[in-house]
Amino acid sequence: MELPGEFVRIARYFKPLAGPGALELGDDAAVFAPPVGRELVVAADAMVAGVHFLADDPPDLVARKLLRTNLSDLAAMGAVPFGYLLTVSVPRGTPDAWFAAFSAGLAQDQAEFGVALLGGDTTSTAGPVSLSLTIMGSVAPGQALRRNGARAGDGIWVSGTIGDGALGLLAAQGAIVDGYLADRYRVPQPRLALGAALHGIAHAAMDVSDGLVQDLGHLCRESGVAAEIEAGWVPLSDAARQVVAAEPGRLALCLTGGDDYELLFAVPPALDAGLIEVARAVGIPVTRIGAFRTGEPRVTVMGMDGAAMGLSRGGWSHFA
Amino acid sequence: MELPGEFVRIARYFKPLAGPGALELGDDAAVFAPPVGRELVVAADAMVAGVHFLADDPPDLVARKLLRTNLSDLAAMGAVPFGYLLTVSVPRGTPDAWFAAFSAGLAQDQAEFGVALLGGDTTSTAGPVSLSLTIMGSVAPGQALRRNGARAGDGIWVSGTIGDGALGLLAAQGAIVDGYLADRYRVPQPRLALGAALHGIAHAAMDVSDGLVQDLGHLCRESGVAAEIEAGWVPLSDAARQVVAAEPGRLALCLTGGDDYELLFAVPPALDAGLIEVARAVGIPVTRIGAFRTGEPRVTVMGMDGAAMGLSRGGWSHFA
Repeated sequence: MELPGEFVRIARYFKPLAGPGALELGDDAAVFAPPVGRELVVAADAMVAGVHFLADDPPDLVARKLLRTNLSDLAAMGAVPFGYLLTVSVPRGTPDAWFAAFSAGLAQDQAEFGVALLGGDTTSTAGPVSLSLTIMGSVAPGQALRRNGARAGDGIWVSGTIGDGALGLLAAQGAIVDGYLADRYRVPQPRLALGAALHGIAHAAMDVSDGLVQDLGHLCRESGVAAEIEAGWVPLSDAARQVVAAEPGRLALCLTGGDDYELLFAVPPALDAGLIEVARAVGIPVTRIGAFRTGEPRVTVMGMDGAAMGLSRGGWSHFA
Repeated sequence: MELPGEFVRIARYFKPLAGPGALELGDDAAVFAPPVGRELVVAADAMVAGVHFLADDPPDLVARKLLRTNLSDLAAMGAVPFGYLLTVSVPRGTPDAWFAAFSAGLAQDQAEFGVALLGGDTTSTAGPVSLSLTIMGSVAPGQALRRNGARAGDGIWVSGTIGDGALGLLAAQGAIVDGYLADRYRVPQPRLALGAALHGIAHAAMDVSDGLVQDLGHLCRESGVAAEIEAGWVPLSDAARQVVAAEPGRLALCLTGGDDYELLFAVPPALDAGLIEVARAVGIPVTRIGAFRTGEPRVTVMGMDGAAMGLSRGGWSHFA
């Protein structure tokens, strides 16, 4: 009895990715015992060709970005990931090579991050490639990092460098020439080790996916505080620094563009030393870029000239 | 500080659906304690306009079908659902009314099935509406129904009626006139109560989503048995019976078409009485349509004339 093409593909490309509990993708659902004595942490993100990645981006990198953006959500909660479910909608006629590359990318990052495929679905679509991933992880009870705990007086911190995602999109589109930035756009780095180390240090945390200023606004709103950051303190990569040096106007893009997938978090000054220590231990740079203030939720960005910057847009929105 | 449109919509239409653990959709992920002493059961299905539903189907019915097809996967495992994550990709310019209707459909079925929204994502797309849902539930340890336990000699049983989904698609498209069938296509009925009652009775189970014959083939392959069913024993609704009476050729479509979302399961004859009893208790009709045999995985359909039917296609595949 011959299998339809859909099931041949699942067997060939996705079954090798299946973890314990996935029942080799041969059943209607995965079944597994939850991690003992832990809370579950789950999130889902979608990615659509032409919106979240370029239609001609290599499929293995698309797969890795999909997994990594979801892992970034768990990092922001201080959670440890264990598995994921995936739905893939592609045009009829998508070649086997696409699935081979896509699943190879997943395999690579599964190994890197210690996660496995638990289930999912493949379907056809008359539109662009449309992907959805649900990530599952766990955290010690009560230790999840939230967005609502920032207090006036806390320092505002970010991991890594900001703006590489937005400049990287320009690079991937060919508007600027920089392989490092294009790679940062295509393969973000979820800060899982840092997130897991922030319990007891950070009052609040989230990941920067829609742009620093907009996401900081969310944190302000959830916590009921205002925020003031210094544009000159926001850490830029060497590559981003060169772009901004040549075109100072690009700084605003760094502050408001999306796709950074760095952590943004609130730390009271008394715990700065502890933060520096854990950041060093996990090998992820952290930088203070400002402070939370009392007041209505509002983000003020002070420019290099000591005056508040006017930013034409707060960040990325699908339906602004 | 004004919220971008995307977040206004999430607050207006999706936040009211959020369950405990969803943190009011204000964080990067949901956090909750897993059900005590239970195994987790998780599955994900995608639906794309023009493939799984018609582009002009009412959004509330699309939402309910999305949730119900996923619930059907849990029914097939004998699991009890508790929550779900959802990603929604729609064209820019999709009106608020679409989201209002879509979320109203979810609210209606959340109440009916005792589930709540745990998280998700909304994005834009240049293509058709593209939806993905991950359902989460639980089962007593070791009691999940699997596809791999059918044994030669077991009876082959189905719940409800078969073929309404495929005929219902024709009705929804206007090729035949029948409101009952169109409704069955648009709003399937997950057989959760029956699935949960089949532990200790059924050796194997799955749901019929890609067509009876194809799905029975999956069950054969997973269990290492052959199957022989009688076309004349396959239960048809009154509406389907009328269609087939007028056009006998439609019977093959009933047997191979998708979207039934009934349960298909294996029961040893010694447990028939127990099955009849639990089916009566949950109020879901069940019908024996054949038996599993020793032999290579293969599905034989005996026609009304006592000879094996030749079926031109086994069932639905996205990439046949």
